[in-house]
Amino acid sequence: VPAPGSPVRIGVLPHGTYNAITDVAGVRVGHKTLIRGASVRTGATVILPHGGNLFQEKVPAAVYVGNGFGKLAGITQIKELGNIESPVILTNTLNVAAGINAGISYTLAQKENQQVQSVNIVVGETNDGYLNDIRGRHVTEEDILDAIRAARSGAVEQGNTGAGTGTVCFGFKGGIGSASRVLPKTLGGYTVGVLVQTNFGGVLEIAGVPVGKELGRYFLSDQLNNPADGSCMIVLATDAPLLAPSLERLAKRAFMGLAKTGGIASNGSGDYVIAFSTHPSVRIPHRSGDTLHTTATLFNDDLSPLFLAAIEATEEAIINALFAAKTMTGRNGNKIEALPKEAVISILKKYNRYQP
Amino acid sequence: VPAPGSPVRIGVLPHGTYNAITDVAGVRVGHKTLIRGASVRTGATVILPHGGNLFQEKVPAAVYVGNGFGKLAGITQIKELGNIESPVILTNTLNVAAGINAGISYTLAQKENQQVQSVNIVVGETNDGYLNDIRGRHVTEEDILDAIRAARSGAVEQGNTGAGTGTVCFGFKGGIGSASRVLPKTLGGYTVGVLVQTNFGGVLEIAGVPVGKELGRYFLSDQLNNPADGSCMIVLATDAPLLAPSLERLAKRAFMGLAKTGGIASNGSGDYVIAFSTHPSVRIPHRSGDTLHTTATLFNDDLSPLFLAAIEATEEAIINALFAAKTMTGRNGNKIEALPKEAVISILKKYNRYQP
Amino acid sequence: VPAPGSPVRIGVLPHGTYNAITDVAGVRVGHKTLIRGASVRTGATVILPHGGNLFQEKVPAAVYVGNGFGKLAGITQIKELGNIESPVILTNTLNVAAGINAGISYTLAQKENQQVQSVNIVVGETNDGYLNDIRGRHVTEEDILDAIRAARSGAVEQGNTGAGTGTVCFGFKGGIGSASRVLPKTLGGYTVGVLVQTNFGGVLEIAGVPVGKELGRYFLSDQLNNPADGSCMIVLATDAPLLAPSLERLAKRAFMGLAKTGGIASNGSGDYVIAFSTHPSVRIPHRSGDTLHTTATLFNDDLSPLFLAAIEATEEAIINALFAAKTMTGRNGNKIEALPKEAVISILKKYNRYQP
Amino acid sequence: VPAPGSPVRIGVLPHGTYNAITDVAGVRVGHKTLIRGASVRTGATVILPHGGNLFQEKVPAAVYVGNGFGKLAGITQIKELGNIESPVILTNTLNVAAGINAGISYTLAQKENQQVQSVNIVVGETNDGYLNDIRGRHVTEEDILDAIRAARSGAVEQGNTGAGTGTVCFGFKGGIGSASRVLPKTLGGYTVGVLVQTNFGGVLEIAGVPVGKELGRYFLSDQLNNPADGSCMIVLATDAPLLAPSLERLAKRAFMGLAKTGGIASNGSGDYVIAFSTHPSVRIPHRSGDTLHTTATLFNDDLSPLFLAAIEATEEAIINALFAAKTMTGRNGNKIEALPKEAVISILKKYNRYQP
Repeated sequence: VPAPGSPVRIGVLPHGTYNAITDVAGVRVGHKTLIRGASVRTGATVILPHGGNLFQEKVPAAVYVGNGFGKLAGITQIKELGNIESPVILTNTLNVAAGINAGISYTLAQKENQQVQSVNIVVGETNDGYLNDIRGRHVTEEDILDAIRAARSGAVEQGNTGAGTGTVCFGFKGGIGSASRVLPKTLGGYTVGVLVQTNFGGVLEIAGVPVGKELGRYFLSDQLNNPADGSCMIVLATDAPLLAPSLERLAKRAFMGLAKTGGIASNGSGDYVIAFSTHPSVRIPHRSGDTLHTTATLFNDDLSPLFLAAIEATEEAIINALFAAKTMTGRNGNKIEALPKEAVISILKKYNRYQP
Repeated sequence: VPAPGSPVRIGVLPHGTYNAITDVAGVRVGHKTLIRGASVRTGATVILPHGGNLFQEKVPAAVYVGNGFGKLAGITQIKELGNIESPVILTNTLNVAAGINAGISYTLAQKENQQVQSVNIVVGETNDGYLNDIRGRHVTEEDILDAIRAARSGAVEQGNTGAGTGTVCFGFKGGIGSASRVLPKTLGGYTVGVLVQTNFGGVLEIAGVPVGKELGRYFLSDQLNNPADGSCMIVLATDAPLLAPSLERLAKRAFMGLAKTGGIASNGSGDYVIAFSTHPSVRIPHRSGDTLHTTATLFNDDLSPLFLAAIEATEEAIINALFAAKTMTGRNGNKIEALPKEAVISILKKYNRYQP
Repeated sequence: VPAPGSPVRIGVLPHGTYNAITDVAGVRVGHKTLIRGASVRTGATVILPHGGNLFQEKVPAAVYVGNGFGKLAGITQIKELGNIESPVILTNTLNVAAGINAGISYTLAQKENQQVQSVNIVVGETNDGYLNDIRGRHVTEEDILDAIRAARSGAVEQGNTGAGTGTVCFGFKGGIGSASRVLPKTLGGYTVGVLVQTNFGGVLEIAGVPVGKELGRYFLSDQLNNPADGSCMIVLATDAPLLAPSLERLAKRAFMGLAKTGGIASNGSGDYVIAFSTHPSVRIPHRSGDTLHTTATLFNDDLSPLFLAAIEATEEAIINALFAAKTMTGRNGNKIEALPKEAVISILKKYNRYQP
Repeated sequence: VPAPGSPVRIGVLPHGTYNAITDVAGVRVGHKTLIRGASVRTGATVILPHGGNLFQEKVPAAVYVGNGFGKLAGITQIKELGNIESPVILTNTLNVAAGINAGISYTLAQKENQQVQSVNIVVGETNDGYLNDIRGRHVTEEDILDAIRAARSGAVEQGNTGAGTGTVCFGFKGGIGSASRVLPKTLGGYTVGVLVQTNFGGVLEIAGVPVGKELGRYFLSDQLNNPADGSCMIVLATDAPLLAPSLERLAKRAFMGLAKTGGIASNGSGDYVIAFSTHPSVRIPHRSGDTLHTTATLFNDDLSPLFLAAIEATEEAIINALFAAKTMTGRNGNKIEALPKEAVISILKKYNRYQP
């Protein structure tokens, strides 16, 4: 089953209704896009794991660091406690602080949280400084609160939107992408959804087709002009009942999906995967009346199908971002072309992989 | 050689001139203390590894996570690249964003940094919410820039100052503490300096003497009233020529010093050690004219004396914080008593460890 | 409540019946001691987490690496899957292979395991080469199977026995030690038991008393003759219902207990903590008829008392090893004196800590 | 430049003379193949980083754990000290002990090592139990010493040889594979060589072509018969002057190469990358007459080309193993077919990737 509108089919598993992270029930996505004047090309994207009070009902979570040249906020507490208690916020490198402040404000303002004095906000970023006046730090706390307020389920807007407004991927315009995979009912029928903020380089492959090489645009093809640096934030949601250790294993597989697009996790990349489970039975109450936490989770032996789903959904989410993004001009007149669809389709046809 | 004014002697190695992190040549410390009205009891403390442009001349660095229930910013890039390129900033839990913004502003404003679009700011925190109106987020970017501007070498102000203004340690008033150790000339004569922001609990021991037990104030002594939660930020500097892997090993030993004070790294602790080397020869230029990075560093086999120094300096820095801090009343009229010096001296005498 | 026969009392929590790892119900310990001729001074110690088929009923487990200069077998599978499926075997550095072979033979021979083709054997070691002809690799697979067969509950033989036969600790004769702590009923009444193989150095403190310094025997006291190198294997068992992430946190606290004895985790140390839970409800069946694994475990918020128990039990287990070990002469006539009990008692009295 | 005999071209960088790990000067590879009777189908492969005494002249090294369901010996010391001091030995899962013993014997026997009492042996494994009577533990210490003695530079024998004798990959006959990549002179001209022991599954892709899907043989294609379990050991050598942290980064990229072949690092996989640098200037002497270790290494900023080389060499080494391996029948009459070359070539032609 192909993604609607995509000229390729990736992997062997089917996707969900929206082919997006929102196919995991309850997950909501919100964007705030900032395009102002000649040089503001940035924004924020938030992912809400469920519709309730995230601080009072935390979700099991894990982070995998593909390459740590980034400013991810919140990682050590996720690793220590195995949960997330705030929205997951994506923005640009120099506006992580706005994300933290917005997350705190959002949390403190909820009425059950009036006594809260500590909350771990998760903020990821990529560097949109080629198109965006990143030194201006244009994303405000209020912008991010707008993105939270805009969060909804259903189809996910992709491409030059939210935190992907000004990003660059494999030398083409990047942005936000999303995809999902659904396991067969006999394997539990679980969904894995992924959302990516693509801003990295390497040697682009689309469904294994050497598109970057064919287009003559790839890392080292021209030693002066093709830095592979940049980053990819990957957020993975699943409704499979998993605790942190299993989620960390899924997160690592998402990074394998990035590898399949030709990403190389270059020295300057901040490549992180944040994975969480939305299954109601594994949530962690902030304060519980119970003495013990009773959970029913998948055995290690049953995780491999989810691994495949994580790889495929991530690979496709990245490719979807490229197909969705549009040519953009920004700071200093810098211009980044969208992936040339017609040329790409020709290449896909050449390699017999055109499957619209 | 005892620390001036301290009633105990800890360990077997001598300390440096100031018995402080500033005994490591070039390291500067600055505080901004906020005591306003009835309920603002907070602040910031910054540590500058050297007097130059930190972004252009990065220092090798590592982080050890004792317990990760904290909001440390900047950790993954330190781990990936093995360096620090900004001041190390300490403040309260909900003002980490102010720290990040201040660090960015400080970096972007330096004239060699006019093209910089990405910088990794290191901000640690502990939760001063018992004495301070932490939800008010009173520490501003400007406050932290003030602390940076105030940074100097020489004696370090300790106790209720800067980021330690409102902290609590073992149920007594905590705060900033510092100490150092110097190796014998035959072992290289290197200095290890430590600065701590103490806000944690357990079963207090001073130089091995069971002070917490004698005072009847310790974790589990009264199951309702003695949470051990809280955090300890530990910053360790050395002039020994070390790269990141060796610094990570030193950082882990600093945590062993915390253990010796009776800290238990409770569930709710954010206990981190940030270690860096100031040796000029190991600095990492942001952009280098050289093809290779030539360094001359200590062999693994020669690190054990530095390990001992790290343990001792950390243990003593924590104890120094307790001796320096003074009784404080803050938010909601909450009052935390200073460590009762006279009673403590009696206890030290009882156990034959009084060594003024 | 003091340990029987010990001249000091460590910590604030009571110990269990045997003040040993076997206070955790179901845990069994077996030794095989090899003292032959002038230069064989070695052996093996095994810990069985429960009395059943460990491969078919795995226990949740974690490992913390204090300092990784050691040859621990089995670590990555414990980390990946969060369980142990074999006895935990301790022996000398160059006989780890004998331990692996014995563990495999033991596992393959059990009748439910006739189809087993892969099993992860956990073998730790310390280096007894000062007293023992370690290059001779005298511990055989059969010796280790003897230790497994000898495993029993109840009091644990300590000192110069099993894997501790030839070890050295703080310059005195080390060996096997064990201790336990029991939480108050109101906190669950759980037991934490620890067994250590002590072979390391530093600046010895007993219950905080500077024994090493008083005896003039400590790291750096004489720069030529006092290497702190060596290792400490720590095995921690608990009946608290915990999965791997919580056990890893307990394991880290055990290392804090080592710090309190004055250990410095020197460059040449292989310091590892292996922690497991024996609670029947958290066991992992090798193959399950169920789709989901239902467990009821402690919340993170309730772990701190167990942390304190882990610290105290480890500290005391190390001290117990020193008090139990006896003077030994071995390879090349090398002689290691036992801790001089009378002198130590005098020192404890001097510091008012003599509590027989 | 294609590999001789390979029907595809992978990546954008050229390979070295032998398209093998031995293109890194000084690296030697040795095999011992055991094919006896109906059910012994196993062996050992060893990689020697240089031709001298490895214990006396250690090489900087790192390990990346892709999935830790394996029995790798020696990992923690590599991680702690950043070096390897023994041959790297590959064999089957239940013969790791033979590998350790052989490594110890080899080391102790060298005349400069007569006082050595501790050595860290690196042994990796995959499970050849489908074709081989693995429970018989047929690989002996002597067999592994034979492999060490057989080690040589030049072309590397691949396929059903040494530790790859009985392995299975993507449902076809796996085995040993090797490949290399060489950077342009302007980027230093460094070589990266990889050797793999392939025994894993997933959804096979060759140069991005969906071969597994076309052949109808892939994970989940038939839910009963297609477990993806198994493992991949990856050994990476480079002559670039790198210390352990950079080597760990390269090791992680090798795992990305595995991802590109369609491997999913299934639950039951033991996927590890062992990376070392052979550059003479970064070697670590066991005992040095110098006070400091002077090294000249690449800057982080210059690593990305090596990352690409590591990805490509690993991807191709795995594919080379599949093309080199031949159909084999073993234990219980179990038979594993070689990759059907003609069918694969047809598929490659279908997708326009046939490049002999």
